[in-house]
Amino acid sequence: MNGTDPTVLNLGFARVDLGREKRQGVAEVVYAPGKTREHITAIVTGLLAHNTGPVLVTRVDARTADAVRAEIDGGQYDDEARLLAWRPVPAGRFTVAVVSAGTADWPVAAEAQAVAAAIGLGTTVIHDVGVAGLERVLAVKGQLAAADAVIVVAGMEGALASVIGGLVAKPVIAVPTSAGYGSSFEGITALLGMHASCAAGVTVVGIDSGFGAAMAAHRIALTRADPR
Amino acid sequence: MNGTDPTVLNLGFARVDLGREKRQGVAEVVYAPGKTREHITAIVTGLLAHNTGPVLVTRVDARTADAVRAEIDGGQYDDEARLLAWRPVPAGRFTVAVVSAGTADWPVAAEAQAVAAAIGLGTTVIHDVGVAGLERVLAVKGQLAAADAVIVVAGMEGALASVIGGLVAKPVIAVPTSAGYGSSFEGITALLGMHASCAAGVTVVGIDSGFGAAMAAHRIALTRADPR
Amino acid sequence: MNGTDPTVLNLGFARVDLGREKRQGVAEVVYAPGKTREHITAIVTGLLAHNTGPVLVTRVDARTADAVRAEIDGGQYDDEARLLAWRPVPAGRFTVAVVSAGTADWPVAAEAQAVAAAIGLGTTVIHDVGVAGLERVLAVKGQLAAADAVIVVAGMEGALASVIGGLVAKPVIAVPTSAGYGSSFEGITALLGMHASCAAGVTVVGIDSGFGAAMAAHRIALTRADPR
Amino acid sequence: MNGTDPTVLNLGFARVDLGREKRQGVAEVVYAPGKTREHITAIVTGLLAHNTGPVLVTRVDARTADAVRAEIDGGQYDDEARLLAWRPVPAGRFTVAVVSAGTADWPVAAEAQAVAAAIGLGTTVIHDVGVAGLERVLAVKGQLAAADAVIVVAGMEGALASVIGGLVAKPVIAVPTSAGYGSSFEGITALLGMHASCAAGVTVVGIDSGFGAAMAAHRIALTRADPR
Amino acid sequence: MNGTDPTVLNLGFARVDLGREKRQGVAEVVYAPGKTREHITAIVTGLLAHNTGPVLVTRVDARTADAVRAEIDGGQYDDEARLLAWRPVPAGRFTVAVVSAGTADWPVAAEAQAVAAAIGLGTTVIHDVGVAGLERVLAVKGQLAAADAVIVVAGMEGALASVIGGLVAKPVIAVPTSAGYGSSFEGITALLGMHASCAAGVTVVGIDSGFGAAMAAHRIALTRADPR
Amino acid sequence: MNGTDPTVLNLGFARVDLGREKRQGVAEVVYAPGKTREHITAIVTGLLAHNTGPVLVTRVDARTADAVRAEIDGGQYDDEARLLAWRPVPAGRFTVAVVSAGTADWPVAAEAQAVAAAIGLGTTVIHDVGVAGLERVLAVKGQLAAADAVIVVAGMEGALASVIGGLVAKPVIAVPTSAGYGSSFEGITALLGMHASCAAGVTVVGIDSGFGAAMAAHRIALTRADPR
Amino acid sequence: MNGTDPTVLNLGFARVDLGREKRQGVAEVVYAPGKTREHITAIVTGLLAHNTGPVLVTRVDARTADAVRAEIDGGQYDDEARLLAWRPVPAGRFTVAVVSAGTADWPVAAEAQAVAAAIGLGTTVIHDVGVAGLERVLAVKGQLAAADAVIVVAGMEGALASVIGGLVAKPVIAVPTSAGYGSSFEGITALLGMHASCAAGVTVVGIDSGFGAAMAAHRIALTRADPR
Amino acid sequence: MNGTDPTVLNLGFARVDLGREKRQGVAEVVYAPGKTREHITAIVTGLLAHNTGPVLVTRVDARTADAVRAEIDGGQYDDEARLLAWRPVPAGRFTVAVVSAGTADWPVAAEAQAVAAAIGLGTTVIHDVGVAGLERVLAVKGQLAAADAVIVVAGMEGALASVIGGLVAKPVIAVPTSAGYGSSFEGITALLGMHASCAAGVTVVGIDSGFGAAMAAHRIALTRADPR
Repeated sequence: MNGTDPTVLNLGFARVDLGREKRQGVAEVVYAPGKTREHITAIVTGLLAHNTGPVLVTRVDARTADAVRAEIDGGQYDDEARLLAWRPVPAGRFTVAVVSAGTADWPVAAEAQAVAAAIGLGTTVIHDVGVAGLERVLAVKGQLAAADAVIVVAGMEGALASVIGGLVAKPVIAVPTSAGYGSSFEGITALLGMHASCAAGVTVVGIDSGFGAAMAAHRIALTRADPR
Repeated sequence: MNGTDPTVLNLGFARVDLGREKRQGVAEVVYAPGKTREHITAIVTGLLAHNTGPVLVTRVDARTADAVRAEIDGGQYDDEARLLAWRPVPAGRFTVAVVSAGTADWPVAAEAQAVAAAIGLGTTVIHDVGVAGLERVLAVKGQLAAADAVIVVAGMEGALASVIGGLVAKPVIAVPTSAGYGSSFEGITALLGMHASCAAGVTVVGIDSGFGAAMAAHRIALTRADPR
Repeated sequence: MNGTDPTVLNLGFARVDLGREKRQGVAEVVYAPGKTREHITAIVTGLLAHNTGPVLVTRVDARTADAVRAEIDGGQYDDEARLLAWRPVPAGRFTVAVVSAGTADWPVAAEAQAVAAAIGLGTTVIHDVGVAGLERVLAVKGQLAAADAVIVVAGMEGALASVIGGLVAKPVIAVPTSAGYGSSFEGITALLGMHASCAAGVTVVGIDSGFGAAMAAHRIALTRADPR
Repeated sequence: MNGTDPTVLNLGFARVDLGREKRQGVAEVVYAPGKTREHITAIVTGLLAHNTGPVLVTRVDARTADAVRAEIDGGQYDDEARLLAWRPVPAGRFTVAVVSAGTADWPVAAEAQAVAAAIGLGTTVIHDVGVAGLERVLAVKGQLAAADAVIVVAGMEGALASVIGGLVAKPVIAVPTSAGYGSSFEGITALLGMHASCAAGVTVVGIDSGFGAAMAAHRIALTRADPR
Repeated sequence: MNGTDPTVLNLGFARVDLGREKRQGVAEVVYAPGKTREHITAIVTGLLAHNTGPVLVTRVDARTADAVRAEIDGGQYDDEARLLAWRPVPAGRFTVAVVSAGTADWPVAAEAQAVAAAIGLGTTVIHDVGVAGLERVLAVKGQLAAADAVIVVAGMEGALASVIGGLVAKPVIAVPTSAGYGSSFEGITALLGMHASCAAGVTVVGIDSGFGAAMAAHRIALTRADPR
Repeated sequence: MNGTDPTVLNLGFARVDLGREKRQGVAEVVYAPGKTREHITAIVTGLLAHNTGPVLVTRVDARTADAVRAEIDGGQYDDEARLLAWRPVPAGRFTVAVVSAGTADWPVAAEAQAVAAAIGLGTTVIHDVGVAGLERVLAVKGQLAAADAVIVVAGMEGALASVIGGLVAKPVIAVPTSAGYGSSFEGITALLGMHASCAAGVTVVGIDSGFGAAMAAHRIALTRADPR
Repeated sequence: MNGTDPTVLNLGFARVDLGREKRQGVAEVVYAPGKTREHITAIVTGLLAHNTGPVLVTRVDARTADAVRAEIDGGQYDDEARLLAWRPVPAGRFTVAVVSAGTADWPVAAEAQAVAAAIGLGTTVIHDVGVAGLERVLAVKGQLAAADAVIVVAGMEGALASVIGGLVAKPVIAVPTSAGYGSSFEGITALLGMHASCAAGVTVVGIDSGFGAAMAAHRIALTRADPR
Repeated sequence: MNGTDPTVLNLGFARVDLGREKRQGVAEVVYAPGKTREHITAIVTGLLAHNTGPVLVTRVDARTADAVRAEIDGGQYDDEARLLAWRPVPAGRFTVAVVSAGTADWPVAAEAQAVAAAIGLGTTVIHDVGVAGLERVLAVKGQLAAADAVIVVAGMEGALASVIGGLVAKPVIAVPTSAGYGSSFEGITALLGMHASCAAGVTVVGIDSGFGAAMAAHRIALTRADPR
């Protein structure tokens, strides 16, 4: 029966949602962990054939990425973001500032930036802006003001989301990270803190989910008549 | 020193942030629980005098609302949303659909709707669309497609956020509610489930925070050149 | 004293429950982790000698399985399910559909399928039917309707259990998996979500317990006069 | 649009799923807490008009039940189970034994029994069979063996589910209750214990969800060609 | 035996630690909840007789306080702090700034201030300095710089502790409060966040423990040769 | 069938374990909360008729106790312990010291003492021995040394169990209490702390379970040939 | 100062409590993890020189044990229990039955047995007595009745503690283990379940603490005039 | 813009807070985990150039430390504390006693000591003073009395903080450690216990945060006119 449904590609081990690009503006994204190279190659091949926009594989290590790229031309690998992408879209008019609270939050921020860039958002990256040195936050107010939305990536207590939420009148998407020590509890402390933020209207995505934050920004970009 | 800072109104028991309207587009909102009528009256009086836009008091019971309105003209009270508002803004061009999963989620949805309306967003309300009867969800796809953003209010397991996140290409702001029984744990189950949502780019605000969801939608509306 | 109890086989390091096959329809199943090859071999030998139906070893790695099979003839090993089985029973008339929400849930679904098949249930496997693409779920309604019971295997937020619970009038046995990222918390999010499911009558087994789900289905099959 | 969908009754404050009776064998069940008498009356009226089988309201207190019954004829109220029912179905051939571990678990067991009876299952109730006096459990083995499925209702550590799961070859549906003291943590201890049960194939529903257990039994009864 | 130990006053229902004043600089403090008026009166009488410094009763309601004061002269009651005190000490040279993040944190801040004042610390109170309006924090930098130690009282996400910890080179004692909503979880979110603070050297006391913070400040004051 | 089992008294609403007195030395104890006066009266009547030793009702309020005593002669009520007892046993040769850490722990300590006394243990009560004043602990070493076992009742951080566990070579039964504030979390902090105690061989019972501690002491007394 | 305290041996890196043997009947026991071979050797040497009874090192791996034994004669190593012991005491008259619920609980049971034996308790070991096969429990009632105390070692839901607690009138010391899968949560489920046990007077020690259980049994043995 | 802010050194991958030494008395401290050798080298080089006091790298392994020292002269490495330091300050007049409860707590205590020493505090180290042998605590009272502040490092139940808090009239900074077994839960048990301490005025820092405790002591030292 679903053999005849043109929006689902049944590969046996996976059921690829071909309709997602049309429905949501970005094709289904492949989460690499737990998948073999053969599986990733088959899914990507199917997505490239049946869609026209970018195709992404997230959380993929360099060796797997190389193996898949050897099979499918045109893939670009970003090893900080662990992102493998085909047919990335040029940056449109909607820009996102990705702000990280500390150097340890960098891999998550890198994923947010790389995914956002691949799906056509303009990106600015601002590193290592912890609230323990407020002048660092105040110094980047101009950069934040120039963006259409802000992704705040922070572990520890996640206070940066509250502080930036109070400074700007933009969508603020907070990403708690599992970075931290002391009593960070693998990101739970930051997750709870960002939810209890005293700055109204801050929203939160899952722990370490740079990908989710970029996709949330993409949804916002789509609300504009002219996102690109 | 802060006596001379024009952006802070020091009432002794409270330090009102007069700069917030300019900085964020909406004046500081008063959270009523724990404040006396006199305190609420004083803060609202200050906000009305030093700002020009809407002034809101949330989670306020009817008796307190009546007492404050007796002191300050022009306040409108919405008893389902428990919101007291002065100088509400007419609906602009940005519209939000507020969708609730069950009848028990209504008070939170009401707060989201009322706050959004008071600060100038167009609102559509869609009640009681649980995923256990999928046709109810599918039936409202058209209404969801017509909105610029969707606020999903759900307790229990919060699955509605994933389902709607997969259906629409809009910003989806999920609000976990403390409604539910069985193993809902006062909203924690829904909060975690919404964060682990398999629909990419769904964002989440705090438990029962209809107010927070409305403010998040407002931040998104501001990214458009023409929000109203 | 228990040397004379014919329903207990005391091997010193283990006390095998020989009466379970008669009492429950399936002999005691051996959980491999933490047991040496010699222990597994001795227990299986005892079970084969004193029972007449299938004998199973779960969560066993390939090397251990090979070593045990070298000692005891007739064992069949399923490496995806990590199941080692002797004397599997042909499929009877009671059939179970095993549905997984994502590719990462596959190992748990494989265990459910393999155990169910070994103890005489008919099985259908439906992979990768996440709720973020509802048409994938709707497309398999026919296959679900043809089964006597449905095992839903899902990590992340576990919403698939609610959606399928609402679609079918069959026993739905939900298995939360530890697959997932973001805020899945090793399956706790899915476990809680499945319990708080808004679809009435969904039941849940332990995290990653494909085995438990198959056994639950077996208990249901036994309620029919003609399970095979 | 959904005004023309015959399977949804849109009452404004609620969207009644009229298709559920046909889809799942039992009409949508009304959860009373948080609903006004007027709301309950309107929903029940709609369900009675558009369905032909039993209509149930759960967790309803006596005063509300009386008020609703004054508006709608034929309702029967069970005050121990806090259940209000119209058009109950005579007991069919599928029977359920409801076993409680202690006297404090009685309200939950009563709900399971009353819901099961109203939707056409035969029921046997066995009270106060704690494992601290094993002979009490052993004494009821015959009663358990005569039923088609067993609902085990237990708070505290929930050990009764494991013990009964080991004794019978029937579907065992465990209901953790919030009864208990010491370290019961409102049912969480029993919930976890039932999930970690060493008896294979025990399934679990939400805390205090006698209703959910009865519905799960109903799903099992439907797998038989001749449930009634 | 302890009848002859001069440092313990055995009242039967309580064993008063008379040596604490000498050992720690402040006599044992009486925690009122759960104690009868007669018990409080007896303990205070004993402490006044055997010590020479301040005697305090915390978390005492107005009616109990009045009843005890009717029996023992000289007690002063602070109803915001719910503190009853005899023989308070004039403020010495060591001063503490008590800063609260929101108006809801006031009762805890009041307790910290009143206890600190009663045991001889100079106190400054700064209300309602949330990080969502940073200029409010920056505006009080001078006041913070003039104090010897800072007590930060905050609920919600507790970010104020990190921000102030980064601004001043003083001992910062953070008090998480149970005030808040959304995802504050009765102070747990603030407690965890304060512990994971990115500002080095911030210390934390128990939830709502204004008393504990004042006593911690007192311990610091004692490290100076000239605390008064 | 169990109508003929002489060790079970089936009252319909309860199944009284008549064999427990013979099996365990003390008849089944009635936990009052949630039971009606009629239920308690019926159970106690049955226990008195079929057993010969003490019969106890725990956690019973004064009004219920009076009502039951009006029906059944000879009951003695201890309102601090909330214990109702018939046929208490004179103190034997095995003695228990019940030590509480603070005055707030008194109700739990009272239950431990009253239950222990009613079932024939000698008891010594030592109140309010917190570790913040170590000399109070050291002062009672002689009293502890004279007892056969020690029950330590403590809330807060529960450190008294570790300290006493290190001082004496007796069985130490620790009872965490829900008393406390700050970060006591209703006894969880004390429960965990007592389990992680650095004093080897300390055992723990449930939160607030003075009853459980007394029963544990009774089990120990039975190991002696001459407990009385 | 403590150089002259004859009850403390200050080794610089450790402060050995030489008085513990006299105070508690067993010398301080050395917990190996985290200590170097040199540290263990030095502490054991000191304990052997200043005490007369058994000296134990727990949780020590075979290689470390061999290295220490090469330095100090007379050490005996039990590799299942991971216990290294000098001067073990012959079994006295007090006997302990160590009962495990499953084969995976064996390492913890082995530690309990080996420590108990080394400090002079008689021990009986009963393996793999899970409650899912009750006849296995009932079959060993005689062995349990012959012991003076019972140590119950169980992971999963820990129900064995309740069942045995109900069967015997002995001290029952429950040890939750981290063995298990599904929803065992590293022993937390068993820990909570054992605390909420419906069998009165069961006591609990820390997760996996076979050592703690043996020491608790030793404390009980000391209550007898004639433990050996 | 921040290129011209003299208090921030923008290295691209990190934004070094050059103003912190002036603002807080100690330059920004580098947390090594997750940073490459090149990153550490660049940050340290910048800090040495723009500050005049000590520069520290914490949690750095020996190989990384050697590599960095090969690039930058004058670094001293303490391998127990895993601390790399340049320009350590001679000990001033403020002294801190670092007390550990057990040998397993040593690495955390070593970090506290080494950081404190490097930033100019006098330090005394007292090892292995567990409360299970109280005489060990009492024996060091003199050493504690001679210090200006006490850092208490303890895992397990953390009771040492309460005991020392009751003995001395000094600032007590408690550091929970992840050392321990049984039910220590990676330091959570100690963290909660220290917060619920019955000794008033004890403060707590994050789990394993010897660094945080040293910095808290430094803040206290700064309150004296003459810290050095």
